[in-house]
Amino acid sequence: MASKLIAIVAGVGPGTGAAVAKKFAASYPVVLLARNPDNFESLAEEINKSGGKAIGISTDISDSKSVKAAFGKIEDEFGVGVGAAAAVFNASGRFVRKPFLELTEDDFTAGLDVSGKGAFLFSQATLPLLLKGVDAGSKYPPSLIFTGATASIRGSALMSSFATGKFALRALSQSLAREFGPKGVHVSHAIIDGVIDIPRTKEWLKDAGPDAKISANGIADAYWNLHTQPRTTFTWEIDIRPCVEKW
Amino acid sequence: MASKLIAIVAGVGPGTGAAVAKKFAASYPVVLLARNPDNFESLAEEINKSGGKAIGISTDISDSKSVKAAFGKIEDEFGVGVGAAAAVFNASGRFVRKPFLELTEDDFTAGLDVSGKGAFLFSQATLPLLLKGVDAGSKYPPSLIFTGATASIRGSALMSSFATGKFALRALSQSLAREFGPKGVHVSHAIIDGVIDIPRTKEWLKDAGPDAKISANGIADAYWNLHTQPRTTFTWEIDIRPCVEKW
Amino acid sequence: MASKLIAIVAGVGPGTGAAVAKKFAASYPVVLLARNPDNFESLAEEINKSGGKAIGISTDISDSKSVKAAFGKIEDEFGVGVGAAAAVFNASGRFVRKPFLELTEDDFTAGLDVSGKGAFLFSQATLPLLLKGVDAGSKYPPSLIFTGATASIRGSALMSSFATGKFALRALSQSLAREFGPKGVHVSHAIIDGVIDIPRTKEWLKDAGPDAKISANGIADAYWNLHTQPRTTFTWEIDIRPCVEKW
Amino acid sequence: MASKLIAIVAGVGPGTGAAVAKKFAASYPVVLLARNPDNFESLAEEINKSGGKAIGISTDISDSKSVKAAFGKIEDEFGVGVGAAAAVFNASGRFVRKPFLELTEDDFTAGLDVSGKGAFLFSQATLPLLLKGVDAGSKYPPSLIFTGATASIRGSALMSSFATGKFALRALSQSLAREFGPKGVHVSHAIIDGVIDIPRTKEWLKDAGPDAKISANGIADAYWNLHTQPRTTFTWEIDIRPCVEKW
Repeated sequence: MASKLIAIVAGVGPGTGAAVAKKFAASYPVVLLARNPDNFESLAEEINKSGGKAIGISTDISDSKSVKAAFGKIEDEFGVGVGAAAAVFNASGRFVRKPFLELTEDDFTAGLDVSGKGAFLFSQATLPLLLKGVDAGSKYPPSLIFTGATASIRGSALMSSFATGKFALRALSQSLAREFGPKGVHVSHAIIDGVIDIPRTKEWLKDAGPDAKISANGIADAYWNLHTQPRTTFTWEIDIRPCVEKW
Repeated sequence: MASKLIAIVAGVGPGTGAAVAKKFAASYPVVLLARNPDNFESLAEEINKSGGKAIGISTDISDSKSVKAAFGKIEDEFGVGVGAAAAVFNASGRFVRKPFLELTEDDFTAGLDVSGKGAFLFSQATLPLLLKGVDAGSKYPPSLIFTGATASIRGSALMSSFATGKFALRALSQSLAREFGPKGVHVSHAIIDGVIDIPRTKEWLKDAGPDAKISANGIADAYWNLHTQPRTTFTWEIDIRPCVEKW
Repeated sequence: MASKLIAIVAGVGPGTGAAVAKKFAASYPVVLLARNPDNFESLAEEINKSGGKAIGISTDISDSKSVKAAFGKIEDEFGVGVGAAAAVFNASGRFVRKPFLELTEDDFTAGLDVSGKGAFLFSQATLPLLLKGVDAGSKYPPSLIFTGATASIRGSALMSSFATGKFALRALSQSLAREFGPKGVHVSHAIIDGVIDIPRTKEWLKDAGPDAKISANGIADAYWNLHTQPRTTFTWEIDIRPCVEKW
Repeated sequence: MASKLIAIVAGVGPGTGAAVAKKFAASYPVVLLARNPDNFESLAEEINKSGGKAIGISTDISDSKSVKAAFGKIEDEFGVGVGAAAAVFNASGRFVRKPFLELTEDDFTAGLDVSGKGAFLFSQATLPLLLKGVDAGSKYPPSLIFTGATASIRGSALMSSFATGKFALRALSQSLAREFGPKGVHVSHAIIDGVIDIPRTKEWLKDAGPDAKISANGIADAYWNLHTQPRTTFTWEIDIRPCVEKW
């Protein structure tokens, strides 16, 4: 199986991660990483039943041993030397919104653990596979896509834990874009600016009309469009928001 | 013909403008605006011969009378009340790179005339048509797309004429995105960061490899992808550069 | 008098311009430029009475003939070959806040005329004097300071006329900083983010407490601090806002 | 001594930290924090001999116990309930410039440990003292100033470890500025864009002229100017570079 390129999605949940996984599953076998198997089990089943291939691996993305074990399983499944066509980092730390002086050290570092160290571990694990994808002549330039947020470019009051992680993630993605673009890997960063329409947000923004929440499928389409850009035409950053969003 | 939505491209030349026109011509009748008919005649012919529909109108986009006349001709051709699915502002002022103290007033205002006043005139002329496109139930949200450059976010030495125009254009596009997004018109801005691969640049960057110049077709694809985003998932800004670009 | 360095302030009114003029008048003869003499007459008198030297010249900063005449008068007053220690561009176009489709061409270009062309004319007229200030061994690096606003970095809905001008002004200031910094002229840009405390705004923000409006004298102090930075330590951009401002 | 407001500088070394400490020591007793006592011993002696008051405390700013111990010593020295007029965070993590795939986890997290967690611990320890400074009627608004770098706004290739930390620090400072500005604490961030002129950089940029390196005293003056801004006129961010810097 080593010749077939795969896609790897970290941070699979009911929103962006699942929509992205399904979108990419139409073209690639997909690996679903999440800490909690509840987040990928039914999704993997759905993909496998509908003619795609998906495996889920329970992974703590901010723990190097867990990440190493996950990529060992990927090799077990797809063969040593498997290459990747796409890797999407969609994980986020625990969201803590509190007066700054009430934050515990754990509260504060929750963002940096995932968006800093976790994104580092994911990038170090996936970039070798993406470079193999380049060598293997991937139809589209192998892509490493990071999911950011409003907090990637704005440090709002009470949001320091989330914003420090998201700023750091943006820095990482920009540095990697500059280092790995010339090697043929397309590194991108998406600023998701708004509420995503998922079961948990069903009751939110009900008075703001049918277009007030971001479609997870719309994000997945945008990521796919980034993925299919040729080497002469790479986009590093896009912002995404509902048409009615105030910004 | 009034029921059929059109696309309007200002600043048609051998690069981005032509590629965008051909891309959108696959779905819409296209109007090609350029000061010099040499820039649209063969393109219009090519589109019309290949099954599309295109008309070219010689227009000085920074002159209100000329713009008014052009949109009169559009009504003559497509009917009073015609709506638009897309409008692309791809015009640029004369590029003047000189020590600041050697710039004439005309040199300096060349950028602002096109990217400031010209973009204003184009936006005022096209937005009513785009709003009609919303009312007419356009398949994709009617889109107003502006072509920017590296100079949209960076005022380099000796580049004040170009950068002032491009900064102003970016401001306009952002303001319009905030005003017209809630009305269903998708306003976007693209930062084209690099040399576009056109006949005039054939000899440029020859030592930098096959991926050193931006593909005009790649830009056209990116604009089309912006156009097809649903109302829940609008991107205001993208950057585009070759994978090997230093930035 | 030709050996004495002067300061020139364009856009003198009851707020920032007057405060800056008074601050710099403690060290330099000051030239006050405004279209309407009401804006500089009592100020010039106040400075002259308190031991400083000031002259006011009625000037339309966006008209090249008017600017040329003003700098002719400066030479008449201070001698051909006079150098400058500081030049402050504080002019703003007419502020027009309207739905975009209701803007006239004059409404729209009001911002660009002053913040684009006007700033160009002022810079071309003052930079030769500032370079003379460098040659003359000015105690502090001769400084060219531009007054920006929230709209320098944000194109809000309904604000396209103001924002296009302010974005353009920021581009100009950045380009000039890069070209003239190595020549010893310190070019800076200030983002004034909030309401300035002047007679016209007396009734504004009354419920927001004593710190809700920006002190014009505080801005003048900030500009002076920029002026006194040595060649090894130039700041291009600062933002200024009241401590209670939401941003 | 509890009534006297103090200044606290973290990251005291031969450059910015020492210059800032000396500048603020002219007005306040200063506390010098550095991991290695070599970095503060002679500086404390110099300040104490010249009529100021300084104490140095060996502190690992990224370790909560060490920070807690340091602030215990501050209370021992200046009294329980001592307030602060200024706190300057000038620490930086180990600078690691390597191809991304060669970074160890320790290499990568070196930046985030100091600029992320360390800045958090320092801010949580100093903000209560700065708020006491507000209550005590500090002459100038109590100030919390963070030292950033070019990497605060640019993620260059091979610089991900440094840039992720510096981006995170900028996010923290912006979030704190928005939360604590209305409470009277002035939070600022400085982007130091260039090489600082210190003994270690003596041989650097020798061909670039006398103005090629940033003066540490110039930075200290800039920080003092930030500190003395009134509540109506707060600057959050400044950039600082030599006049000849390319940027």
